[in-house]
Amino acid sequence: MSPHVDIREVALRDGLQIEKPIPLSAKLDLLAAVAATGVREVEATAFVSPSKVPSMADAAELAAELHNYPDIEFSALVASPNGARRAIAAGLRSIEYVVAASDAFSQANVGRSSAQATEQINEIVAIAHDADATVEVIVATAWDCPFDGPTPPQRVLDIAAAAREQSADRFCIADTIGTATPGRVSSLVEQVHPVIGGLPLGGHFHNTRGAGLASAYAAVTAGVTRLDASVGGLGGCPFAPGATGNIATEDLVYLLTDSGFDVDVDLPAAIAAARVAQAAVGHDLPSALLRAGDRMRT
Amino acid sequence: MSPHVDIREVALRDGLQIEKPIPLSAKLDLLAAVAATGVREVEATAFVSPSKVPSMADAAELAAELHNYPDIEFSALVASPNGARRAIAAGLRSIEYVVAASDAFSQANVGRSSAQATEQINEIVAIAHDADATVEVIVATAWDCPFDGPTPPQRVLDIAAAAREQSADRFCIADTIGTATPGRVSSLVEQVHPVIGGLPLGGHFHNTRGAGLASAYAAVTAGVTRLDASVGGLGGCPFAPGATGNIATEDLVYLLTDSGFDVDVDLPAAIAAARVAQAAVGHDLPSALLRAGDRMRT
Repeated sequence: MSPHVDIREVALRDGLQIEKPIPLSAKLDLLAAVAATGVREVEATAFVSPSKVPSMADAAELAAELHNYPDIEFSALVASPNGARRAIAAGLRSIEYVVAASDAFSQANVGRSSAQATEQINEIVAIAHDADATVEVIVATAWDCPFDGPTPPQRVLDIAAAAREQSADRFCIADTIGTATPGRVSSLVEQVHPVIGGLPLGGHFHNTRGAGLASAYAAVTAGVTRLDASVGGLGGCPFAPGATGNIATEDLVYLLTDSGFDVDVDLPAAIAAARVAQAAVGHDLPSALLRAGDRMRT
Repeated sequence: MSPHVDIREVALRDGLQIEKPIPLSAKLDLLAAVAATGVREVEATAFVSPSKVPSMADAAELAAELHNYPDIEFSALVASPNGARRAIAAGLRSIEYVVAASDAFSQANVGRSSAQATEQINEIVAIAHDADATVEVIVATAWDCPFDGPTPPQRVLDIAAAAREQSADRFCIADTIGTATPGRVSSLVEQVHPVIGGLPLGGHFHNTRGAGLASAYAAVTAGVTRLDASVGGLGGCPFAPGATGNIATEDLVYLLTDSGFDVDVDLPAAIAAARVAQAAVGHDLPSALLRAGDRMRT
């Protein structure tokens, strides 16, 4: 039996976050294309400051449309208890709470230290669990910070321990700026595993230096069972200088299935969704399979 | 001590092969930039049919300039005994002999079956060894053929056994069309290893479907000690429909060194050489580090 990897489609949030805001109707077209891939989890939006992230200002309006896809688990990213409350009020039942492992990034991102952000896991979990929602703690800058440089692994392990102690439901380590490589990814995954106990562990990679897919593969061979990806390789991070696209869903699906892993995402449908994403943002996307296609050309 | 990986720079041959011919002076500028990276091995040219591969028509003229870099081992690709003789006569002492594992590709490439091309290893080795030159047997379409589909691994193992029996000096498996993925790469490397005995084993990957670096990393973790790469990710194959760039030297160097491997190539010099390559061909190259740079931008 092939080992299964859960892919979470993040084009609608991480993918669009750095782009100029697009109309809600265009997001709904992208959502429909993404839903047609068979993906079981979709990061729909973020409940964050509309002035800091204008492309997510329509979070509640988008959330109101998600009931059209009852088979998909939709999540929303938050950076504070207030964001969690807004997400719950909008109907989301899967909360992603981001904690940066480096202080400089945490201060730039949310105006709090990493330790202060970690302390808030408790409150976020209480808000979510009261509403029968789940919380995934995502560690940003898990390998490197654009301001502080390499992140000491112990910082990630401390957040992992806090997530477990404060009853988070999932844990994820994110290469926010696309500097991680397979050797360091394997190493960190192996260190995190015993600390989180039985919590499902995910990985989030950007392809900024070409190593995103190699890092993702290293992660799953080291024990990660969940990966974020965006159709077309859409995405970046407005607060991370030099960060470019998420790993492309279709490239990841090709690599994983050809390597013997099982995923829920249909490859031709993912390429079709990448074309919808490319049309929505109006510029070329970095996906390899958007150019090469899903099979050998003879 | 960090494990060492030998990188062979292939921009001048595989990189330029599919491009419109560029002047010899531009090749020499690229060679100077490549030599400045510290790389110890450079695939300089190919002694093949000038009508089929016009960009390599200046092979002998280029070979006459290589004495300027006495610390670099220069190799030339050949597809026949006649090509080997021409390479030796031009002063090359490192011969790469390509044998396609699939018959359709072999016929399209050299007008002979895979078995017929394999039988010629003997003659190529005799020509080379008579001149104190070495022969590396490179298996093209080692994972997939654009015409025949997936390549049965036994075909590669048969060529490996022949290479060893016929006294070749090195062996290399090439993902000619960029369809290999880490799972299949690890598997083939593990199968090839016992068959080649002590011959040094190399890997050659293209990034057509985004998996080139992931495959290269899987190869070195499975026992490959040599990797081909081209600055900028220049390259393709004129006889392989849909094939695009080699893995980029600078992206590979970043990934390997950050993952704990030792290489001879200097990263900033490789990025500088990629810029020279980009100027030489006059179009954008796919390298990630050409865009992102070699360090975090703050």
